[in-house]
Amino acid sequence: MTSPATSPIADALRLDGGPVDLTAIETDAAPGFDGRKADGVAALAAMAPELGDLQERLWAERTAGSQRRVLVVLQGMDTSGKGGVLRHTIGLVDPQGVRVTSFKAPTEEERAHDFLWRIERGLPAPGYIGVFDRSHYEDVLIARVRGLAEPEEVERRYGAINELEARLVDEGFSIIKCMLHISADEQKERLAERLANPEKHWKYNPGDLDERALWPAYREAYEIALERTHTDHAPWHVVPSDKKWFRNLAVGQLLLDTLRGLDLQWPAADFDVAAETRRLAEEDPVR
Amino acid sequence: MTSPATSPIADALRLDGGPVDLTAIETDAAPGFDGRKADGVAALAAMAPELGDLQERLWAERTAGSQRRVLVVLQGMDTSGKGGVLRHTIGLVDPQGVRVTSFKAPTEEERAHDFLWRIERGLPAPGYIGVFDRSHYEDVLIARVRGLAEPEEVERRYGAINELEARLVDEGFSIIKCMLHISADEQKERLAERLANPEKHWKYNPGDLDERALWPAYREAYEIALERTHTDHAPWHVVPSDKKWFRNLAVGQLLLDTLRGLDLQWPAADFDVAAETRRLAEEDPVR
Repeated sequence: MTSPATSPIADALRLDGGPVDLTAIETDAAPGFDGRKADGVAALAAMAPELGDLQERLWAERTAGSQRRVLVVLQGMDTSGKGGVLRHTIGLVDPQGVRVTSFKAPTEEERAHDFLWRIERGLPAPGYIGVFDRSHYEDVLIARVRGLAEPEEVERRYGAINELEARLVDEGFSIIKCMLHISADEQKERLAERLANPEKHWKYNPGDLDERALWPAYREAYEIALERTHTDHAPWHVVPSDKKWFRNLAVGQLLLDTLRGLDLQWPAADFDVAAETRRLAEEDPVR
Repeated sequence: MTSPATSPIADALRLDGGPVDLTAIETDAAPGFDGRKADGVAALAAMAPELGDLQERLWAERTAGSQRRVLVVLQGMDTSGKGGVLRHTIGLVDPQGVRVTSFKAPTEEERAHDFLWRIERGLPAPGYIGVFDRSHYEDVLIARVRGLAEPEEVERRYGAINELEARLVDEGFSIIKCMLHISADEQKERLAERLANPEKHWKYNPGDLDERALWPAYREAYEIALERTHTDHAPWHVVPSDKKWFRNLAVGQLLLDTLRGLDLQWPAADFDVAAETRRLAEEDPVR
């Protein structure tokens, strides 16, 4: 791995490899964190200065030609909290260096290309923290559950995803893959909340219940995808997400671990600092 | 105007129309604000909840087909603080609904097109708060000062910009144009700080001093551009920016005024809320 995750949270969330049984992974736990909600909220807020510093170093590095960048992949069932992570965790860093790409049902143009075409177009440039709100994994999740692609095509895609991610890591990407893991009961509660609150009606879609009806099929599709695409260069993390505060904290910790692992340095000046200092002081052109 | 600015800060910063004399506008003042630095920092922080609420309404509205969106145009000399506004002011809102576009020296492909080609490609989609870090105004500023375009072409561009902005406002844009106004002395100090701090060397470019040498020509180019492109539908604000806290606060206030002026409402449900609530409660498909 390019960025060894060393925090207790990352260690607890990273898959081991091999078959995945999501029913065996608690959705309302806070693994690797020894505290309650208030502690978790405070711990996330406390990360902001270091996250900001490291992000600025990553941003600065690109001016010296570095190709390094970070890609956070957020996957999860409806209401699992991808938007909440964007707001509360990604919202901690400078928006100038963030690129969020949301993947909806593919357009006609996108469907006319290979499934990775739109993914490549949504990748972050060097220096950026990119966030995928849904991703290429939809093409082995809903595509499998809904039969939107032939079985052999879905089969091909696991390998194509691994090849893409390996190439990206070679090119300077650090990839953080997060499956936001909620229980069916928690989803029911969140959907009910949306229905009960007129300010949240815009978030609700009757199709959400049709997707919910396929919960077991989605679970199986996730389990297969997690197993087949969990690699050394781009490991998966299953983030218990019934507790919103832990979900936000965990993704923040994974981001922090990754940035720390890059050993980011301020780029050295590529000009004569003393000469420029003199020039500014003594020959200031503005009279 | 689509979004009447009503706060004392907005009233104080908005140009009146007619010839502009930037030397007559103080760079270290805090017009329209009756407080000091700590008050200004607190006032900006206090805006965050309302900014967040209004941004979410704008974001929600797009799901009901609204075309409305906001475009913040940031212009100013080197070190005037475009990056600081992004970090401290735009950083207050949800990054999911923000699109930052930075305009550098045009690429070969961009130069092969009309100057507005790349601008159109960088525009925010409905629901977004877009921010231009530099903009189409470079094409009447550096283009004029450095003679990068023929005088008659520069002349044509003022009208082309006004036409573009009028069309955008018709399409649902609210445009907030900010000229971050610093003094030459303040720029000198900020450049010296960058040179004195190895962590800031990456922000410095020897070319900055060459641009600085053209300060009077840039001032004149700004004055002409401000006069020629200050319109009812897209007025200019000159933001005194020697005080970073006031600069951040002022742009925040302009954004808040604009969002308030849109009278944003939560979209009504386009489905039968009672029926969906029953369906979720009684016919929950997940057993």
